[in-house]
Order: sequence, then C-alpha cells, then structure tokens
Amino acid sequence: MLGRLNHVALAVPELTAAVAAYRNTLGADVTEPQALPEHGVTVVFVNVGNTKIELLEPLGEGSPIAAFLEKNPSGGMHHLCYEVDDILAARDQLKAAGARVLGDGNPKIGAHGKPVLFLHPKDFFGTLIELEQS
Amino acid sequence: MLGRLNHVALAVPELTAAVAAYRNTLGADVTEPQALPEHGVTVVFVNVGNTKIELLEPLGEGSPIAAFLEKNPSGGMHHLCYEVDDILAARDQLKAAGARVLGDGNPKIGAHGKPVLFLHPKDFFGTLIELEQS
Repeated sequence: MLGRLNHVALAVPELTAAVAAYRNTLGADVTEPQALPEHGVTVVFVNVGNTKIELLEPLGEGSPIAAFLEKNPSGGMHHLCYEVDDILAARDQLKAAGARVLGDGNPKIGAHGKPVLFLHPKDFFGTLIELEQS
Repeated sequence: MLGRLNHVALAVPELTAAVAAYRNTLGADVTEPQALPEHGVTVVFVNVGNTKIELLEPLGEGSPIAAFLEKNPSGGMHHLCYEVDDILAARDQLKAAGARVLGDGNPKIGAHGKPVLFLHPKDFFGTLIELEQS
C-alpha cells in the first residue's frame, strides 16, 4: 500500500528565517512562499531531487500546526506524507487492521489538490502519517 | 549543497511492533532487523521507492537515540539525512555561515559506511540534520 514519500513537513514559527537557512546556509533549491488560507498554512517547498521538504508557517486562526508549535516553539518535524494508489482502499485496509484515521475518516482535499487522510501518530510510534492519493 | 534525501530516521522503543505496523498495517517493504552495535542502534529499512525510512531501536549502553526516547517514550521522528557531494566542503561552508556541527566537527563513519556529520537542530528550526557523503 505505502508508496513513495511525497514530502516531509517541517513546522516553523516563521518562514523568512527558515527560507534563509535552507536557501543560503544549506544551499537548497527553495520556492517562494505560497499562502494556503484554506489549509491554515503558508508553505515553501525545498526541492531535494527525490522528494520535497515542506516548510510550514501557521496562517490565520486555528492553523493545524498551531498546537504543534505551542509544544515545539522553535519548530520541528511535523509529518511524513506517503502516496497511495487508492486512498479509499488504503483507508479501509488500515481501519480493518485497527489503525485510527483522524477526523471523520473521509479523505479531504489536501494542499496539493488531491485527497488526503491523516493517521493517528499513536498507532505509528509517534509519527503523524499523511496518505495522499497519487 | 543539499542533495537528495537519503533517509528519514524514526526512533522507536521496540522494533517488533514497529515492523509489524509498517509491514502488515501499512503494507510496506521492510527489511530484517540489523544490529549496528558500533552505532548503538538496531535498524530496519522501510523501502518506499524514492527514499528510505529507517526505524531505529536503541542497542546497548549510551545509544545515541536513548535521550530522544526518554523525552518521547512512544517514539518519533528523529532526524533527516541528506546527501552531499563533498562533506568537508559542506562542513566548511556551514561553519562559515554560522551553523553548528555536532561533536568535534570531523566527519565520522556512519551506519552506511560513509562519512557523516550532524548539524545542531537549533540552527534548523528543531530538525536534526545528518549530512552523508554521497
């Protein structure tokens, strides 16, 4: 079921400094910030060739990364996103195996315009996993 | 400087359950556990096609992931490893930019038999970064 690693999401309190660190200090290929108000984040993509690193800054009230940044004020690794061929089949298989799907269990349209689901980090040893329809 | 994402390292308290979750629940391609006593971990590789996920369990006294697991007893995302063409040039460039290299600043031979360095997570917004000579 588990396909390629689509991205690693890193939550940061403030994008300007993070972009400078990745672009200037690490010499990475970094995009311009893109506001995604419907997802409560502003995102920058770091292209590392085989996958993407997403730097996420909270945007607006009730950002999905706000609680994480309260616990980790300087930022940190937020989630891993894997691609799956069929997100509904993946969900049904995961639920049958006892894994908890966050929210109401129905895929939402994610930041890349594709259906996504999140799995409970307690079922995966502290790692929040996003699945995205490929 | 920053090349492809070589792996994502996830620390887990105990590999048997983590292997079952990745192999059976997530349907991933998972190797057999490999003890690396000189690195203080037992490792399992999850092959997701474009990169690797490494599940790390502490091995022996003074494991480098022991402190992390004390803070995060159920496990969590431990570090990201990127490839670089020239690790000494990368180190010198990073130090010139003010980034802190952990340890004595000299590359060590990592778990894949190649020279590696770790960068201070405070300089990269809470993410521990490993650089590996490609």
